[in-house]
Amino acid sequence: VNDRTEPELTLADLGESEILGRIFPRLPESSATLVGPGDDCAVMTAPDGRFVITTDMMIQGPDFRLEWSTGHDLGVKAAATNLADVAAMGARPTGMVVSIAAPPMTSVTFMEDVADGLRDACLALAPGCGVVGGDLSVSTVLTFSITAFGDLEGREPLLRSGAQVGDVIAVAGRLGLAGMGLAALFAGERAGARESALQAQLAPLPPINQGVVGALAGAHAAMDISDSLVMDAGRIARASNVMMQLDEQVIDDLAGHLAIEVGADAARARQAILFGGEDHALLMTFPASATLPEGFLAIGTVVACGEGENPRVNLGDTAIAENGWNPYTGWNGETS
Amino acid sequence: VNDRTEPELTLADLGESEILGRIFPRLPESSATLVGPGDDCAVMTAPDGRFVITTDMMIQGPDFRLEWSTGHDLGVKAAATNLADVAAMGARPTGMVVSIAAPPMTSVTFMEDVADGLRDACLALAPGCGVVGGDLSVSTVLTFSITAFGDLEGREPLLRSGAQVGDVIAVAGRLGLAGMGLAALFAGERAGARESALQAQLAPLPPINQGVVGALAGAHAAMDISDSLVMDAGRIARASNVMMQLDEQVIDDLAGHLAIEVGADAARARQAILFGGEDHALLMTFPASATLPEGFLAIGTVVACGEGENPRVNLGDTAIAENGWNPYTGWNGETS
Repeated sequence: VNDRTEPELTLADLGESEILGRIFPRLPESSATLVGPGDDCAVMTAPDGRFVITTDMMIQGPDFRLEWSTGHDLGVKAAATNLADVAAMGARPTGMVVSIAAPPMTSVTFMEDVADGLRDACLALAPGCGVVGGDLSVSTVLTFSITAFGDLEGREPLLRSGAQVGDVIAVAGRLGLAGMGLAALFAGERAGARESALQAQLAPLPPINQGVVGALAGAHAAMDISDSLVMDAGRIARASNVMMQLDEQVIDDLAGHLAIEVGADAARARQAILFGGEDHALLMTFPASATLPEGFLAIGTVVACGEGENPRVNLGDTAIAENGWNPYTGWNGETS
Repeated sequence: VNDRTEPELTLADLGESEILGRIFPRLPESSATLVGPGDDCAVMTAPDGRFVITTDMMIQGPDFRLEWSTGHDLGVKAAATNLADVAAMGARPTGMVVSIAAPPMTSVTFMEDVADGLRDACLALAPGCGVVGGDLSVSTVLTFSITAFGDLEGREPLLRSGAQVGDVIAVAGRLGLAGMGLAALFAGERAGARESALQAQLAPLPPINQGVVGALAGAHAAMDISDSLVMDAGRIARASNVMMQLDEQVIDDLAGHLAIEVGADAARARQAILFGGEDHALLMTFPASATLPEGFLAIGTVVACGEGENPRVNLGDTAIAENGWNPYTGWNGETS
């Protein structure tokens, strides 16, 4: 909404270099940068001779709607989702490159808000991590593409394939809250929804530093929960050739608390915990002998596959179907 | 065009994991990979404790048209343009992550062709460099986003700010050929155009290895020519606070050769050499004492800014305006 008398300045009014000149000063700086923006590449330090790297896109329509998200929200979410992938390796995020394709009529203010969101997410979640480069393009569809990278600080990376029979399954961060927020938005119930659920969906702040904490505590396996607890636990199950057995009582307790927090019934909350996506909580397995670090909650146990059984996720003793987000069939084509 | 009786398989017919299962085996592997696709991040080696990183998007409409480019062309171009940025730092490309957002009705065959193009470009231009991760999304606009990275092998990075008065300005790769190809496509003269010009525009194979060669030969400054010779030389001029003086006779000779090669008049060829983009030739400056490596052509000299003069590009003794591509004003909104 533009309540000024002058028309709002758009990307089409400025050249690429002038737009960059407005955005770059707002972006967070990385303490691991040797050569920052302004050359054909950034040059980053990789102190232990390795780096981890991940990339993720956010597209207007399937991934976000401008009715629901501000530019600041989108900057936070784009950063947070990629930082969570770095954290899931047990690494410390050091930097990211950010590409944005936007319609020419996009306001410069909106792009500045995106930059502010990127900065605020990095400052809150991964101090020292910054934006070291990027690309601005034009498209009819607002599109974000982020590549984030990080430093293992001499540790072995945490993989999906590392879970061992007897491990404790634990999670850091929220489960189901982002899903409840999305359900409220789709139902047109934004006004009545809890702020915590909306924020978890629109501008999530997952516990990025818990990736390093979990690695230091001896975690065997890790990933971030982006599609759903059950779907992502299934990925660890297959990669590690084990059963991921979730504790039904713990899930029910979590559902009860979530239901109270967001004012929903417990059955819907339970569905969101098991099958809701986008919480970007960290799912790890720890040896039974490990002391779970503060902020991790035990939610199950890794057990062996029986004779002739395929790796899967159990809720208690019962197999549970893996449902989650499939972009090519899950999007109905709506963009607003 | 689908001349089979069965409808062509589209992305909407398959789940994300099945699509990835078809694409990943076609992608090039990186010899610098410690942990490849399948976890939340790839883990890469960075032998000298640093890495260079760059990112670039390609959007249907402003950056390419499916009337002109095959999936294979787009895979080659997406890889080549990013590899050129790594080369321009004097680094050896080690890997890339690739995100593609595509309409659900995109054929699986098209995506396989893109993967083949990525592979063929890496094999031809940067052996050992591979695709180590990525993201598949859905969008109404076909969108590619690539982040490439590389290894400096113990050398100092080549920067835009390194040009020194007295340096020889040299270029490796073609000038103007991609621009002539684009002009032929826009004029609807594809049938009569030279294959070399069309390939330079649609599926460029710039001399990536010359980045390392130039660095080893002692280059002071470098960048890749993506927007135009004059526009990119202007960036080196400002970053280094020097005049980039192009040799008019050399430019005219190049124009004469290009005119004959593509069957155009010399004036148009000269425009393409100076102001055409997307050749991704490597522009470097070398100390006058250096022996120019094979494949580099001297095209000018770095001279000092006079009293009160701003850094700029000269053709002979005359200042030349910096024209090139501005995405927010240069795109007319057409996508086909």
